Amino acid sequence: MSDSLVPETRVLAVASHVAYGHVGNTMATFVMQSLGCEVAALNTVNFSNHTGYRQFKGTRATAQEISDLYQGLCQSNLTDFDVMLSGYAPSAAAVEAVGAIGIDLQQRAEKKPGSFFWVLDPVMGDQGRLYVNDDVVPAYKRIIHHADLILPNQFEAEVLSGIKITSLATLAEAITAIHRIYSVPHVIITSVQLFKLSASGSTPSPPENFLTVIGSTTKSDGSPRLFRVDVPALDCFFSGTGDMFAALTVARLREAVDAAGDDLRNTRSWVSPDDVPSSQLPLAQSTIKVLSSMHSVLERTMEARDAELAKDVPAQNGGVSVEEQQKRDHLRRTKAAEVRLVRNTRFLRDPLAQFEVQEWCKEDLPAQLQ
Amino acid sequence: MSDSLVPETRVLAVASHVAYGHVGNTMATFVMQSLGCEVAALNTVNFSNHTGYRQFKGTRATAQEISDLYQGLCQSNLTDFDVMLSGYAPSAAAVEAVGAIGIDLQQRAEKKPGSFFWVLDPVMGDQGRLYVNDDVVPAYKRIIHHADLILPNQFEAEVLSGIKITSLATLAEAITAIHRIYSVPHVIITSVQLFKLSASGSTPSPPENFLTVIGSTTKSDGSPRLFRVDVPALDCFFSGTGDMFAALTVARLREAVDAAGDDLRNTRSWVSPDDVPSSQLPLAQSTIKVLSSMHSVLERTMEARDAELAKDVPAQNGGVSVEEQQKRDHLRRTKAAEVRLVRNTRFLRDPLAQFEVQEWCKEDLPAQLQ
Repeated sequence: MSDSLVPETRVLAVASHVAYGHVGNTMATFVMQSLGCEVAALNTVNFSNHTGYRQFKGTRATAQEISDLYQGLCQSNLTDFDVMLSGYAPSAAAVEAVGAIGIDLQQRAEKKPGSFFWVLDPVMGDQGRLYVNDDVVPAYKRIIHHADLILPNQFEAEVLSGIKITSLATLAEAITAIHRIYSVPHVIITSVQLFKLSASGSTPSPPENFLTVIGSTTKSDGSPRLFRVDVPALDCFFSGTGDMFAALTVARLREAVDAAGDDLRNTRSWVSPDDVPSSQLPLAQSTIKVLSSMHSVLERTMEARDAELAKDVPAQNGGVSVEEQQKRDHLRRTKAAEVRLVRNTRFLRDPLAQFEVQEWCKEDLPAQLQ
Repeated sequence: MSDSLVPETRVLAVASHVAYGHVGNTMATFVMQSLGCEVAALNTVNFSNHTGYRQFKGTRATAQEISDLYQGLCQSNLTDFDVMLSGYAPSAAAVEAVGAIGIDLQQRAEKKPGSFFWVLDPVMGDQGRLYVNDDVVPAYKRIIHHADLILPNQFEAEVLSGIKITSLATLAEAITAIHRIYSVPHVIITSVQLFKLSASGSTPSPPENFLTVIGSTTKSDGSPRLFRVDVPALDCFFSGTGDMFAALTVARLREAVDAAGDDLRNTRSWVSPDDVPSSQLPLAQSTIKVLSSMHSVLERTMEARDAELAKDVPAQNGGVSVEEQQKRDHLRRTKAAEVRLVRNTRFLRDPLAQFEVQEWCKEDLPAQLQ
């Protein structure tokens, strides 16, 4: 009967919508639905395509419109969500409106610990650059302490922690700081290129062309419980992979917490007892499955992209300018790299590859964190 | 490898979006994606929930916003659609904007007959009542002759044909008229309650509590080729079933046409040669599978609804007015009847039930149509 589905889960997904391709909610909704989650998609923007094309049309929701849609759910008693996944919001006011939704759902669940869990992807920038207005950063800093799990990339982790990540030591410091500053019990930093960082302690650096995902769930004293998973990197940039990671994490974390039993499921923020080692955390176990699914789907995407780009380009009518030709090439390459999702759902449902999770033991940490 | 998927199909789906529940694009997108179609969802409204709750919040797209989103796709060469499925549009101007999209896609495919197919659901009303503005009707009448397949319900078929359907004879007349007036090659009238109509010729009326779906593909002389499928009706109203029918039809028709071979696939509007009997039409073969999937999903939905309604209602704080109590009951019943889609996708992919398609032969038709 189960069809490889995760336990029944109702998710409110607040992120962007694009007509063509798969990013934001257009990625996350289908990924979670494919694993059996009932998803309510509250869209923060409504664009023709993702911004990687360098041109798009459409509209952004105002903070008021986001609040109104949520009020629409409230007035009809449609707020029975187990999880909220919040991603891109187009302004500081919109981030605050999303924050107010998360806080309201949390308050409704107050009397039943563990019955509501908020996964927050603090979408602000990447590769050393903000792609939101400056005032979005303090807006996120104000709401993050309400979230249960946040999923910053390396740059966003730097912005939130105030620590420049240049080494394994500073990476651990950044996670420790995020736990402490925001009281957020679970953190995953997606896509760290560890080989670019200097090594620390006895932790071996992975070879080049590996991406490392670092996660942590706090212990009862607020200290981190760190794990890492190294995965082979694919030589291509795909839009929407952060949203795919977040969506798969919602489904797989819920599954892992369910497997851990009633005690954990009924614990506020699903924080495992102190004697659970980092590699056995539901967050770590879920991350292995998430990365396995992603690796398989992205491998197939790269094959399909290469096949598409190998096809002849239709002949142009007359000459076009160099600029116009470059633009057309960019559009063609961007389209070819759209994640091939709908025909690869078997890899979402049944992860194949076996990645290993490693504990980051005390002795691997820099002295001041031990 | 195929995972029970239909042949690769790129669909532009133009309809409404709701955050909670499954109607419009929120139904159609996931249904088509589950069968392996790549779907671009262009949303004509953005509501919190469907209107069956009798209250909702959100916004309607203007005709300009709909056109803009499509222009966004055009400017980035993202118009490689095999099929367009168009549903609810919130105004006459919006219907015209959607019409312009269908016509543009048709013109782009002009040199490759059969490479683009437009399925149009003329959403105007039901049960003898329009639920759109009066000016939406002429707007539909202007665009329908561009569509390849239309999916009116009984009331919409009456509006389009100008013929009141009171008997099998008038039903056949209405379909014949729709083929003739709009030159539309394929028609399916969804949900006719035949037992309420008077019988005609040798066609046996099905027993009560059966719904009948009637379809037709024209012959080369424009005359109808009629088939019917009777399915047991479920004693419950579910929102979004029309959208589910349309979405499944897109996928299954594409599959049936593909199975019929290159000749049909490369024929304008996928109209089968005259020697293909109505029961063997791709449209008829697809309808059997569509109704089978729907029946299984709706059966499970009804079970889940009954289980949900059997649960105790949380005690109210103090007395509420009779009106307020009725409103709460209505909201609860409406929510309980939301189609259970995401955990029943196996019935979409692998239809179980075997419904029979019957040809409506010449002798079954009233004399004037023979």
